[in-house]
Amino acid sequence: MPLESAPFSADEYTRRIVKTRQAMESAGVEVLFVTDPSNQAWLTGYDGWSFYVHQGVILTMEGDPHWWGRYMDSLGALRTCWMEAATIHGYADNYVQSTVRHPMQDLARIVRDLGFEKARIGVEMENYYYSAKAHAVLTAELPDARIVDVTALVNWQRLVKSDEEIAFIRKAAKISDKIVRTAIDRAEPGLRKNELVAEIFHAGISGVGDIWGDYPAIVPLTPSGLDATAAHLTWNGDPMRKGEATFFELSGCYRRYHAPLCRTVYLGTPPAEMREAEKAQIEGIEAGLDAARAGNRTCDIANAFVNVLKTYGIQREGRCGYAIGLSYPPDWGERTASIRAEDETLLEPGMTFHFMPALWMKSWGLETTEPILITESGPAEPFCTVERRLFVKD
Amino acid sequence: MPLESAPFSADEYTRRIVKTRQAMESAGVEVLFVTDPSNQAWLTGYDGWSFYVHQGVILTMEGDPHWWGRYMDSLGALRTCWMEAATIHGYADNYVQSTVRHPMQDLARIVRDLGFEKARIGVEMENYYYSAKAHAVLTAELPDARIVDVTALVNWQRLVKSDEEIAFIRKAAKISDKIVRTAIDRAEPGLRKNELVAEIFHAGISGVGDIWGDYPAIVPLTPSGLDATAAHLTWNGDPMRKGEATFFELSGCYRRYHAPLCRTVYLGTPPAEMREAEKAQIEGIEAGLDAARAGNRTCDIANAFVNVLKTYGIQREGRCGYAIGLSYPPDWGERTASIRAEDETLLEPGMTFHFMPALWMKSWGLETTEPILITESGPAEPFCTVERRLFVKD
Repeated sequence: MPLESAPFSADEYTRRIVKTRQAMESAGVEVLFVTDPSNQAWLTGYDGWSFYVHQGVILTMEGDPHWWGRYMDSLGALRTCWMEAATIHGYADNYVQSTVRHPMQDLARIVRDLGFEKARIGVEMENYYYSAKAHAVLTAELPDARIVDVTALVNWQRLVKSDEEIAFIRKAAKISDKIVRTAIDRAEPGLRKNELVAEIFHAGISGVGDIWGDYPAIVPLTPSGLDATAAHLTWNGDPMRKGEATFFELSGCYRRYHAPLCRTVYLGTPPAEMREAEKAQIEGIEAGLDAARAGNRTCDIANAFVNVLKTYGIQREGRCGYAIGLSYPPDWGERTASIRAEDETLLEPGMTFHFMPALWMKSWGLETTEPILITESGPAEPFCTVERRLFVKD
Repeated sequence: MPLESAPFSADEYTRRIVKTRQAMESAGVEVLFVTDPSNQAWLTGYDGWSFYVHQGVILTMEGDPHWWGRYMDSLGALRTCWMEAATIHGYADNYVQSTVRHPMQDLARIVRDLGFEKARIGVEMENYYYSAKAHAVLTAELPDARIVDVTALVNWQRLVKSDEEIAFIRKAAKISDKIVRTAIDRAEPGLRKNELVAEIFHAGISGVGDIWGDYPAIVPLTPSGLDATAAHLTWNGDPMRKGEATFFELSGCYRRYHAPLCRTVYLGTPPAEMREAEKAQIEGIEAGLDAARAGNRTCDIANAFVNVLKTYGIQREGRCGYAIGLSYPPDWGERTASIRAEDETLLEPGMTFHFMPALWMKSWGLETTEPILITESGPAEPFCTVERRLFVKD
């Protein structure tokens, strides 16, 4: 039974477990070991900044999931997971970053104790927190097991959100609106970028009324000028300058749920080509939102956007978005469906994406994006309310 | 030649490359592929929040290192690495989170193009950003190469800091002092924890004068009461309460260098056993600092601390600290030497540690810690200046 403090209802966790077991059955695995912190949290409620050591959740076809990790973090698991204490396992501290023993030896012992030493065990081979070494040790320790790759098996179960989850994303979106507006309002020539980011962090973590701000899975990205032609550069202490565009790639976060939102500010008078690109981008976003309907596919959104750009003579390659929801660093994407030409995921009501039709050009970057919800009928619903345009401050 | 904007001098990067090549020679590898973002930054200057996709640095025994990653991030590499553009490689966006192709296929092509398809190649098997899948693909793509595990080979080269690096840690420590003082000053009954964390973030990123604040590799940890008995729980929107201890586990960060510092605040009158533990802890820290001398070993610090605790009847197991410096999420430790009974790393001048003799008891946690520098002679020098005690606010 969920703890009082667990983010979701008992029914919600039951729904997740049932859905995951169906996927396990399809994949032909009797045991699932997940290391992705967002999958751990989704299944058990576990929440802590402890993913820098080996930990994970074991799910079999019967009974509650088991949480396994460092002993000191098992105390956090007792305080955040909905399961009984008997399913929480902690390993000794001398396994941590040791050159003579590995935590996966302890995990293998638990798998054996549970009677699964000859089982088909699914692991997440493409995950930040399942290293090549972890896999090598686990495989060697369980020679009679059949260890198979089920990367993203749980992530795909997360794609369609429950009403409880959508309510969390709506709260995150309120914070996103607040922090993007804060960034636009404060931006001015001479303001040091780190000062601006300090304001953004303050606004985001303070939250909105009762909606307290959690940490986003990616820090605020706020590059200006030529730095904005590259993606993912973080800030420094340089001042903002007249004649430069700065984009804000930010997300509010409520209890680990995200609603990423981007806007761009130009200090001064933007070049004509940027104004033209703005027009193309906004028209393209409208076309994309209109294509983002239940029954269509993710590629339809990308194609609708790119086709509008083409009428403006703009060539645009690369991904235009990804599924969003519950996340931990280093990425707020769910790593399942992408909005891109080659992705044919069927859109269903309750799916949530960051529609991210950013333009990174030779001398500037223009990011205007929307976190969106696929609805029962009609175009996608944007979660946020910040006006969709290039913000110009003279 | 380093860019104007690179954090370090040309000599410093040369020193690092030479040192790493010596270690490669000892390990018997002709090619090194590092995925650890801090190792990438240490060797090349690369800095961006892009480690959520596959990327890395290739170092051979001749010429400059190569940076390899997603195309859009290669533009960031051009702006942050000190090498020429010819050594920066970007892969197409349709490799990103694809189920039909993997970035390691592109890396293998580069390794072949450079003529190393039959080489002995060292990889970091125990790293967050080198997944089991990445290793499987790379190994399959380079059947004639000999791929060997050299986890932490570069990290160990980073253990003794240069004067340039120590200057950065001193700057980070100024920020650490500021944020820990901010937390102590603001803490009061009724203050929501997220509001407190918002203040901490604001103080840290604003920095101190010209020292602009970078993002720490771990978010502020500020648990109260029973949550403080568990390590690594993050905040929520609950108010601080009278009769509870709260510990602050924080780090200032300057250009990715850290100086983690912890202090504890008690709102109200602390129980006698906590006061007693405070005495033991502070005396133990002094003993530890005195043992932290060049020529001694890391275990000597841990033993000195634990022996003092024993005289107070306190049993303490687990790690008491770790090497610190350049880091990216999810961990600000260097993952090399640990301060613990079984670690016998010889202490040398220029090594830097977070001496972390925290006490997590049944009903409260007490963290009083110091980032320290091993000096030429005499006891370790603490980088920070916040008074070493339990802070009580009635």
